[in-house]
Amino acid sequence: MHSYPTARVGVAGATGYAGQELVRRLARHPAADLRLAMGSTAAGPRRPSPALARVWSGDLAPLDPDRLAAETDVVFLAVPEEAAATIAPALVTAGRRVFDLSGAFRLRDAAARQRWYPHSPEPPSGVVYGLPELDREAVRTARLVACPGCYPTAALLALRPLAEAGLLRPDGDVVIDAKSGVSGAGRTPSERTHFSECHGNVGAYGVFAHRHGAEIAERLGFGVTFVPHLVPLDRGILETIYARLRPGAGAAAVAAAYQTAYTGAPFVRLTGEALPEIKHVVHTNFCDLGWKVDEPSGRVVIVACLDNLVKGAAGQAVQNFNLAFGLDERAGLD
Amino acid sequence: MHSYPTARVGVAGATGYAGQELVRRLARHPAADLRLAMGSTAAGPRRPSPALARVWSGDLAPLDPDRLAAETDVVFLAVPEEAAATIAPALVTAGRRVFDLSGAFRLRDAAARQRWYPHSPEPPSGVVYGLPELDREAVRTARLVACPGCYPTAALLALRPLAEAGLLRPDGDVVIDAKSGVSGAGRTPSERTHFSECHGNVGAYGVFAHRHGAEIAERLGFGVTFVPHLVPLDRGILETIYARLRPGAGAAAVAAAYQTAYTGAPFVRLTGEALPEIKHVVHTNFCDLGWKVDEPSGRVVIVACLDNLVKGAAGQAVQNFNLAFGLDERAGLD
Amino acid sequence: MHSYPTARVGVAGATGYAGQELVRRLARHPAADLRLAMGSTAAGPRRPSPALARVWSGDLAPLDPDRLAAETDVVFLAVPEEAAATIAPALVTAGRRVFDLSGAFRLRDAAARQRWYPHSPEPPSGVVYGLPELDREAVRTARLVACPGCYPTAALLALRPLAEAGLLRPDGDVVIDAKSGVSGAGRTPSERTHFSECHGNVGAYGVFAHRHGAEIAERLGFGVTFVPHLVPLDRGILETIYARLRPGAGAAAVAAAYQTAYTGAPFVRLTGEALPEIKHVVHTNFCDLGWKVDEPSGRVVIVACLDNLVKGAAGQAVQNFNLAFGLDERAGLD
Amino acid sequence: MHSYPTARVGVAGATGYAGQELVRRLARHPAADLRLAMGSTAAGPRRPSPALARVWSGDLAPLDPDRLAAETDVVFLAVPEEAAATIAPALVTAGRRVFDLSGAFRLRDAAARQRWYPHSPEPPSGVVYGLPELDREAVRTARLVACPGCYPTAALLALRPLAEAGLLRPDGDVVIDAKSGVSGAGRTPSERTHFSECHGNVGAYGVFAHRHGAEIAERLGFGVTFVPHLVPLDRGILETIYARLRPGAGAAAVAAAYQTAYTGAPFVRLTGEALPEIKHVVHTNFCDLGWKVDEPSGRVVIVACLDNLVKGAAGQAVQNFNLAFGLDERAGLD
Repeated sequence: MHSYPTARVGVAGATGYAGQELVRRLARHPAADLRLAMGSTAAGPRRPSPALARVWSGDLAPLDPDRLAAETDVVFLAVPEEAAATIAPALVTAGRRVFDLSGAFRLRDAAARQRWYPHSPEPPSGVVYGLPELDREAVRTARLVACPGCYPTAALLALRPLAEAGLLRPDGDVVIDAKSGVSGAGRTPSERTHFSECHGNVGAYGVFAHRHGAEIAERLGFGVTFVPHLVPLDRGILETIYARLRPGAGAAAVAAAYQTAYTGAPFVRLTGEALPEIKHVVHTNFCDLGWKVDEPSGRVVIVACLDNLVKGAAGQAVQNFNLAFGLDERAGLD
Repeated sequence: MHSYPTARVGVAGATGYAGQELVRRLARHPAADLRLAMGSTAAGPRRPSPALARVWSGDLAPLDPDRLAAETDVVFLAVPEEAAATIAPALVTAGRRVFDLSGAFRLRDAAARQRWYPHSPEPPSGVVYGLPELDREAVRTARLVACPGCYPTAALLALRPLAEAGLLRPDGDVVIDAKSGVSGAGRTPSERTHFSECHGNVGAYGVFAHRHGAEIAERLGFGVTFVPHLVPLDRGILETIYARLRPGAGAAAVAAAYQTAYTGAPFVRLTGEALPEIKHVVHTNFCDLGWKVDEPSGRVVIVACLDNLVKGAAGQAVQNFNLAFGLDERAGLD
Repeated sequence: MHSYPTARVGVAGATGYAGQELVRRLARHPAADLRLAMGSTAAGPRRPSPALARVWSGDLAPLDPDRLAAETDVVFLAVPEEAAATIAPALVTAGRRVFDLSGAFRLRDAAARQRWYPHSPEPPSGVVYGLPELDREAVRTARLVACPGCYPTAALLALRPLAEAGLLRPDGDVVIDAKSGVSGAGRTPSERTHFSECHGNVGAYGVFAHRHGAEIAERLGFGVTFVPHLVPLDRGILETIYARLRPGAGAAAVAAAYQTAYTGAPFVRLTGEALPEIKHVVHTNFCDLGWKVDEPSGRVVIVACLDNLVKGAAGQAVQNFNLAFGLDERAGLD
Repeated sequence: MHSYPTARVGVAGATGYAGQELVRRLARHPAADLRLAMGSTAAGPRRPSPALARVWSGDLAPLDPDRLAAETDVVFLAVPEEAAATIAPALVTAGRRVFDLSGAFRLRDAAARQRWYPHSPEPPSGVVYGLPELDREAVRTARLVACPGCYPTAALLALRPLAEAGLLRPDGDVVIDAKSGVSGAGRTPSERTHFSECHGNVGAYGVFAHRHGAEIAERLGFGVTFVPHLVPLDRGILETIYARLRPGAGAAAVAAAYQTAYTGAPFVRLTGEALPEIKHVVHTNFCDLGWKVDEPSGRVVIVACLDNLVKGAAGQAVQNFNLAFGLDERAGLD
């Protein structure tokens, strides 16, 4: 077990589901000294979840960016993107390193950002998109890491190795059918997330109009059809991805591309033809990837799943923190 | 199949869960002509549920008591008790027969009513408490039927036959531990009914302070300890009831008391020692009752379950309507 | 309300989930006299579900094809396909009309049948594939109706109108991503359907190797990529279907094709851009269809959902029975 | 962070739900060297759960008590009680320390043991009942620790402090109404644990005839009415306990009794009148306790909850291991 110098750490938005998960992980992180946990507004936070009793003994404070800048070295932002859009640049200017879980700084294309995140300013310099397995080097020196959420993380981990190995047919449609647990919608009650509306129910939403589709397309360099669905479980997402291989590419090439991409990546587990299931990844930072190829037709079906609050949110941010501080990528994430 | 003269019927509060169930049942009731379905406020209803397409083809109107009085013979109220407290007496004065699903007129004791339903006036004459199996005669001539909800219905059907047969020990505590699906909390989103808070969770609420405990006690004539719990399912409640039999009373006496009470009652199914489960009653108007007796100690455990939206709400009201109009008690409830 | 002559009816396989639903529907069907309900084996049935108490008062008998032939006019088969493969032809020979819920006689192509249903013989004459909305005339005179199950019903109702109107691009891949409740896997316990394995979980199965994919392709006349998933709910399936429109075809053409196909079809509800959800169809015989078109790209996403035990099983069979006997298509299905 | 000498550890029954949780916890325990993980039979284990990939890299072996004796210092038994009844004494004789999760050695009274665990022999010397918070000293030197399961753990933590402080009325009935997730029933599929039978369902079982009721009574020294229920969730139990206080005892005395009993107990969290919920304890080793007192009547309602696979199984055993080896009680349990 290593011994690390510790960084003074703060969390903004600590009462939401991702924020609670951050507190839980950072409170026992060997290189983090969790100094401040704040709510999402200056009006003060909700009462802390009883689940955190004895996990973290500090007090929850109202949101106060100046205090974050003064008392911490590193800030994790789990606040709505409107708030992150103003807080993150200020913290960077103050010399803090920032790990932002919101979408405010994920899109590079100005027009797309204007459409999907109208509150977001021109990103400050030093911003990187931080999907650790694909952006490892960039994260090491970044000042502000825009951490991708659950849908793009699963989609990009599944598709980028195939695209970069030149295995996908350029004219083949790529369809991403995503099934998400309800915690992905956050902690604020709404009609759509009312228990009686979700239980026993499945529905699609955001067809042809979801900002995560735009984010996936920007990072891939080509468009996809992305349709998310709400399914009646709390944590975890699963994406079923349909694509076409270029002539000549088969199961062996697909397996090789994934092996190459993820050798040494501690949180990507390749399950091959034994397709992964949500149950095996919840409460972990793993993204499990499996696939099947129909060689006569060149069709490939990839299944990717992860816990939206861990690998799709808090765990991802901690993994980026570990990279940025030269720690073992797994620190605090076992 | 009988042919009935039909009554012109209106529903107020048709967009809530109980109200939707009323529309569904009344739209195909052989003796009801569903003329009006209204929301819960004058500001107009939410859009109708897609579930009701082709089930009832009428339009949803804003709440308008004058129109209900003018265009119907019979009104079912599935509105909050504050609204029912004023609408119901006015409709009775106008000569309509009213079936109220709220708690506004359930308590007879003025002090208890003042504590638990501070908006409720002195009840108009012609009010009866309408638990069909136990109040059959009174319902036939009532002008305003206060229909009991899910918790008192299960508790009273389980306990009144034993109490009336003199089988319960006078000094024996009666404990009612109730487990309820989330639809019982209504359709308005809240933190407690947010999917992620209910899924995988069980919690007690209202301990020593639940108005349904007061209602149960008033109808029984003695106090009980009543603790409801929210369990992660949508429809249905189950009550486990713990009591003591007086010396000399055993399993045979309990069975006889239930047989006597419920012979000819089409919606109470006695399951004996094969304890009932929620799964078998959902989407029906049945209340299933089972029990076990430990003769050496005189302890009896009774399990009662029903669908809170049917026997605990809409179906109960329709059953009362059937009684009040001299119809087959099962009309519209198959 | 019509008055019908009644047929003497038997159900084989009455203890499974689809069989119970058949008993429930036929017990109150105005033109059916439910004479016999049998288990799935000669060894005798399990005890009847407590849910059917007071719904049907007959006894469950062991499976006995001779008795079915002797005492009924019409037989509904909800037994495994191995059993149906021998019982159904014998009953047809004996002059009975048969509605088979199994897959034994659904495939027309002998090679496909041999692969997916190796127990199935050459179908007897008088067999028709009975998806009521698309095969209405053939069903009227059939002796043996092979009733399609949940996946092909949703897929064919969604795709056949577009294919027959010539709206689909011939070279466009069609992807069907299906999400199914667990009751579709039947009543026999298995590791995959153990509560703790399904709760909080989603997984794909049968990728590139599902017999319902073959059935869908045969009835469409072209291949599809069909991937079913198990989701943590009991009843209902939802299919998200991805296709490409031929140049020039847009949202208006899609809507027109559906309107043309389903005018007068009482159980297909077109929801347009308000995509349907499982919650609105469970416990009904409806199939709800909605869709969105991205006109620049010609992509169309169709969402179809239904209750697998009703429109995907028992209700479908009853609807076919209604057609075959000249009854109102909705009889017994409200 | 302490540095410990490590013990060589083996797990028998590593493929069940409690066994998987043991592997997960022991694989990262600072004082355990997990050498062997075995299935529940000599015929060899099922394949390991994909959830354990990268969590523990060893192989699963068939059950082999001799190998356990030869290659380990400490054995955790998560096998059925018939197997534990023979394996545990043999391992003790061989000088190993054993932590048994089964019920084989929990009952002290021979007649009760004969009734509920007919396979269990006279316990070897050195057996202790190991509820860490109440039996801390005895565990330190035990050779064989019979670890209590979920129901007795919650009940005893809730009731023993009140009983030992003399706060309970001697003639007052004590009722324990328990609600349990389905993983408590183990990993073997059965009709009762089939997803479609549990989803949307609640049912009681084992009324007046549950061996955990006998265990609770033996450890308390007085009888209780214990009724468990299956509720539709995977992990976690909640017990609602109804008792009477002796005259003069009130809320302050109850609070004081709990404070006294659990000061310094790292895994009992007292929530007072904010009653605990399952959601806050799952995946942790906490038992949360809350209560409400109605002083006029002397009634007390206590709510206790815990994760049946952690504090009710694997975590409990690890906590006992920590005590037995002089480690921090929390080692491996954060």
